[in-house]
Amino acid sequence: MTISMYQASVPVFNQMMRSLIDILKKAVVDAEKRKIDPSVLVNSRLYPDMLPLVKQIQIASDTAKGCVSRLAGMEPPVFEDNETSFADLTDRLERTIDLLKTIKMEQVDGSEDKTIDITFRGSTSSYKGLPYLLHRSLPNFFFHVTTAYAILRHNGLEIGKADYIGTF
Amino acid sequence: MTISMYQASVPVFNQMMRSLIDILKKAVVDAEKRKIDPSVLVNSRLYPDMLPLVKQIQIASDTAKGCVSRLAGMEPPVFEDNETSFADLTDRLERTIDLLKTIKMEQVDGSEDKTIDITFRGSTSSYKGLPYLLHRSLPNFFFHVTTAYAILRHNGLEIGKADYIGTF
Repeated sequence: MTISMYQASVPVFNQMMRSLIDILKKAVVDAEKRKIDPSVLVNSRLYPDMLPLVKQIQIASDTAKGCVSRLAGMEPPVFEDNETSFADLTDRLERTIDLLKTIKMEQVDGSEDKTIDITFRGSTSSYKGLPYLLHRSLPNFFFHVTTAYAILRHNGLEIGKADYIGTF
Repeated sequence: MTISMYQASVPVFNQMMRSLIDILKKAVVDAEKRKIDPSVLVNSRLYPDMLPLVKQIQIASDTAKGCVSRLAGMEPPVFEDNETSFADLTDRLERTIDLLKTIKMEQVDGSEDKTIDITFRGSTSSYKGLPYLLHRSLPNFFFHVTTAYAILRHNGLEIGKADYIGTF
């Protein structure tokens, strides 16, 4: 027995995106209780030149759908990045989970050696599927999920590690 | 071809701990330049009831060595949690990387179905090796690495995603 590329990607991305959805639910209730304009939280950041919550969640979504699509040999579908509210962000995460459902295990498995070319800001990096997943996509994905958590926590939302880990 | 339990654990933990070591190096130089007492940064947190930088790095270390030791069927070695400086934290990460070097691929591989019992604050949770690695240890590890990064970033250290991802 070993780990398949599908097992190390889709269920992990889904676990964390479902956690984020539940955390956003708590943020909505908390903002109402503390009379905080939710858009303040959606646009909050940990430092002036860091990205705000909305962008952290958009990039987490992009990392998950980009990774699984590329491993499956597909062009990643582009989402519009037009979210402005907690409801929009929840919808973004749900659409990402739904998209991952359309990609079958057989499409992702066996992609360990597949060449993945990523063009970002005009320069192209080339990876094999396995390091692309384990050493680039997962670290990147967890970075944005954790930073989203940290932004809300820094703003006083009462959540803990159990909310972050979620259920699996 | 598939992913082995060793491939999905040791090299990923090492990549991120080496990144942290390099980030701490930058923090030392930056603190000197900005005339900040390094212990202020070591004890900095994102919210009063969140853990400080020193604890984030101790837990990242514990998560990495705990995970790999348990998958290998060994009791995780206990480190003392007596770090108070950037030099101590760097040493902690280096000792963790050194410890992982002593655990051989053959000891970790094939642990997908191994039963892992974790007792935390008096209650025991039981996992199979594969979900213990992918759904608990990796998310937990990345949480503390990212939070360490975020604490330093929030305090004005000029680092970016490339410092976090490091080299692999």
